[in-house]
Amino acid sequence: MKKLVNRPEDVVRESLQGLGAAHPDLVEVHLDPHYVVRAGAPVAGKVGLVSGGGSGHEPMHAGYVGRGMLDGACPGEVFTSPTPDQIYECTKRVSSGRGVVHIVKNYTGDVMNFEMAAEMAQGEGIEIRSVVINDDVAVEDSLYTAGRRGVGATVLAEKLAGARAEAGGSLEEVADVVRKVNDHARSMGMALTSCIVPAVGKPTFDIGDDEMEIGIGIHGEPGRQRMKLEPADQIVDRLLEPILDDLGARPGERVLAFVNGMGGTPTIELYVVYRRVAERLRQRGLTIERSLVGSYITSLEMAGCSITILRLDDELVSLWDAPVVTPGLRWGA
Amino acid sequence: MKKLVNRPEDVVRESLQGLGAAHPDLVEVHLDPHYVVRAGAPVAGKVGLVSGGGSGHEPMHAGYVGRGMLDGACPGEVFTSPTPDQIYECTKRVSSGRGVVHIVKNYTGDVMNFEMAAEMAQGEGIEIRSVVINDDVAVEDSLYTAGRRGVGATVLAEKLAGARAEAGGSLEEVADVVRKVNDHARSMGMALTSCIVPAVGKPTFDIGDDEMEIGIGIHGEPGRQRMKLEPADQIVDRLLEPILDDLGARPGERVLAFVNGMGGTPTIELYVVYRRVAERLRQRGLTIERSLVGSYITSLEMAGCSITILRLDDELVSLWDAPVVTPGLRWGA
Repeated sequence: MKKLVNRPEDVVRESLQGLGAAHPDLVEVHLDPHYVVRAGAPVAGKVGLVSGGGSGHEPMHAGYVGRGMLDGACPGEVFTSPTPDQIYECTKRVSSGRGVVHIVKNYTGDVMNFEMAAEMAQGEGIEIRSVVINDDVAVEDSLYTAGRRGVGATVLAEKLAGARAEAGGSLEEVADVVRKVNDHARSMGMALTSCIVPAVGKPTFDIGDDEMEIGIGIHGEPGRQRMKLEPADQIVDRLLEPILDDLGARPGERVLAFVNGMGGTPTIELYVVYRRVAERLRQRGLTIERSLVGSYITSLEMAGCSITILRLDDELVSLWDAPVVTPGLRWGA
Repeated sequence: MKKLVNRPEDVVRESLQGLGAAHPDLVEVHLDPHYVVRAGAPVAGKVGLVSGGGSGHEPMHAGYVGRGMLDGACPGEVFTSPTPDQIYECTKRVSSGRGVVHIVKNYTGDVMNFEMAAEMAQGEGIEIRSVVINDDVAVEDSLYTAGRRGVGATVLAEKLAGARAEAGGSLEEVADVVRKVNDHARSMGMALTSCIVPAVGKPTFDIGDDEMEIGIGIHGEPGRQRMKLEPADQIVDRLLEPILDDLGARPGERVLAFVNGMGGTPTIELYVVYRRVAERLRQRGLTIERSLVGSYITSLEMAGCSITILRLDDELVSLWDAPVVTPGLRWGA
């Protein structure tokens, strides 16, 4: 196993310590239980925004804590749901009295543990709204999921709802942005190689030198089909068609196109992918009003990519353009 | 060869087309010869800032074209110097009459071709200052270099000199910032795996499952030593000691710590590395005033990292904090 780690069991803790050391102006790292909150949390008068899930998807979620995005993130062990305790402590820590929104990716453990944490927090008088993200069109049920998995739309929901919360939005308004993003976004991914979970030490799955997995999950869980490697343009078409079929965007609509690297894919390839995405969307009569290209929701060192398309309206465009300052995503003030 | 590409010979062109499609507000992509300039170039009254080199190091350099960083970038084929023609055309395109600074990484082909392009541009009355970056302490001469190689300091020089140019700096002032960064920065890298040049189709070098290469170059060229894989903290110490010995920073000094991923290394590992870097610098009595953690100067999908330490003064801190808006690096307005 070739990794820049010390003891595999210390990866999450040490990585969080590194995050805290690198960005003391933005985040505050708590250990045992592990959670990351915005420096100076809670922000008086602001609705709190919390997400979390297994580690190994960095910069998501801890890298999105800061100004204009998340108030708190709860990182589990690698590819393992955070405990109710982590989520509960984090939620309390960011609560300013106006309520807290939980953004939950649709994995059975995450959903269950966020539910328990929400009950605990509500028991202490903190109002919670939980929104489950399930944007992955690849499979209806999977190894870790009843229903569709939550993937790339999570990043967009965290940015957009974060902007609404930063602008003083109410608990219901912030939750509504998350719901809208989930309704208006669809994703699908693929992998060229497996990843290796540090504590396991061997590849999550075997894949031939000339094969790829279409519809892969962000934990390396199986997708739609294993097939021979194809040129990038054909791969894009394989991902984009099911996304667009399900999205229901009409010609003339505006979209955000998000090309995401799985962790081990170089930027030069992501732009080759983006080129085809732009070409196909134009052919469909869709206008790319905003875009995001990079490795934002990853699967450790997996090589591959995912595509997320979000239907935009004026509200979402304006929330997208609002400043965001986090370790993993930043623009504006 | 597992890559998201179409024909290997089209990777650079198609990736640039993707870059242009994704960021029409920031960059303008020219093909045959290939170069990328800031949207709306030249900027009236502004000193131009141009860099370039082989492709495969993205986001460097084309991803650093925009506001507050480069005016132009000249991407060669993968790991191949750009031609004098590319550099000359790019230089002309960004020249507003106040002169153009060339930032050149110290590789024989780059140095030679930038020199020829500078002569051509000067022949047309464009004043040029060329500054060669050679911050890599790993080796004195290498496969492609007489003298030290230019690596991570290039990213910092492009950001910092870009800020000086944006603020109206003169040709000499902008070149002076590049010189200062090169004088005040030292770097060293390591690799866990090789990369594969698309047109070659097989790994640049062979490396055992339990081995690493210390002092690797950004084209996979050999470094100081091949050795057994060690824990991350020991690897950091192996990179940091030669950097600090050469840097000559005194206790109490302020530095920028830059932990860079080589392309295939996940973010979670880069923060494990950063944790140790911060610990060691503190032990040395150095204050990390600014930091940068991510994959900013890469070697395709190589797994590994490099560390760059830059000695800061008030001028450099203020230039670092100035807004930058490029596809690969952005903060502020």
